[in-house]
Amino acid sequence: MPRRVSESTIRRLSHYLRALEKLQADGVATVSSEELAGRGGTTAAHVRKDLSQFGSFGKRGLGYKVPELAGSLRRILGVDVRWKVALVGAGRIGSALFEYPNFAARGYDCVAILDADPEKIGRCWGRVPIRPTQDLEEVIRTLGVSLVILAVPPEAAQCLADRAVAAGARGLMNFAAVQLRVPPDVALTDVNLVMELEALSFAITQGEHAATSA
Amino acid sequence: MPRRVSESTIRRLSHYLRALEKLQADGVATVSSEELAGRGGTTAAHVRKDLSQFGSFGKRGLGYKVPELAGSLRRILGVDVRWKVALVGAGRIGSALFEYPNFAARGYDCVAILDADPEKIGRCWGRVPIRPTQDLEEVIRTLGVSLVILAVPPEAAQCLADRAVAAGARGLMNFAAVQLRVPPDVALTDVNLVMELEALSFAITQGEHAATSA
Repeated sequence: MPRRVSESTIRRLSHYLRALEKLQADGVATVSSEELAGRGGTTAAHVRKDLSQFGSFGKRGLGYKVPELAGSLRRILGVDVRWKVALVGAGRIGSALFEYPNFAARGYDCVAILDADPEKIGRCWGRVPIRPTQDLEEVIRTLGVSLVILAVPPEAAQCLADRAVAAGARGLMNFAAVQLRVPPDVALTDVNLVMELEALSFAITQGEHAATSA
Repeated sequence: MPRRVSESTIRRLSHYLRALEKLQADGVATVSSEELAGRGGTTAAHVRKDLSQFGSFGKRGLGYKVPELAGSLRRILGVDVRWKVALVGAGRIGSALFEYPNFAARGYDCVAILDADPEKIGRCWGRVPIRPTQDLEEVIRTLGVSLVILAVPPEAAQCLADRAVAAGARGLMNFAAVQLRVPPDVALTDVNLVMELEALSFAITQGEHAATSA
């Protein structure tokens, strides 16, 4: 099942959930697919198609009940439970992530930080001490970590990914500019900031080509 | 044209380029689609299909010439030229981005940093001074900025995006957890770290449902 739902659908579900939570905070009881589409940057038909993949929501002509649909989306996205996260790499990216607003608010608790640098080991970020990278397996097993964020150099990423998976991690978020190999039952998401910039320069460049040849 | 090429294709092109550059550095002259597939985490058929969207590369049975294909991919991705980037938001995410290795190496020069906080204005990161956000239009026009990175709070993002676009920015990279509206000829990429985590918890949760119902 996870393979058949497209990445862009999941992103839209996240947007719908944010929109619903805002409506809920404003005390709005029902919402139409048109309105949800407007807030999610998509179309009403898309909203209905996205949601229909997960069950039957809302009533024709009446729209969706805001708290009910928000609850369903939280269950679908797996954010109705709390997730224990270990951060590997206490550099700048790691620090920005650790301080990222909303991580804890959305149910993601960073319970461990690991780094290879002896200078950093033993320091604390908030209440979380930085531990040596060799403790990775122990941290995952004893703290019940299911998600591991890899904010490490590319050459270290695959080895750490393998160790995290062997110790029981079920999802990896990778910041290293390298394609990781993980077993099919392990979730993987890549955040490659250079590739995001390349997607921009690609779109601009191809747009120019299209304009020139038009 | 930019609309018809999928995001995942662009990501794979980035991966192929990285693999080719590594091969080039190792002095390898030709590469097969199978080998490129292995390094890009995909299949040979996918490699051929991805590349065929942009022209005719390589020869059946002989593979691709490494430097030639690398050059073509650089042109396709628009990384054969240098891009001027302005960073709006000198917080933690902004700082991590500014220090991101490879940005400059890949052709992206951060020529300006802007922030709304009077405490930060006037300081320098490297040789780049932090300027007040109200200078955004002037910075874009006088420095020839085409890409703008928005690492700002969600409530400030749309207004800054509108101003950047009106001043001539052609691509935006958005870190705020909000869906931005931009004209169709402006490229937009979203980096939403909470949504990346949600994609992981979604995959794990749905995988469990699938396993339970199997």
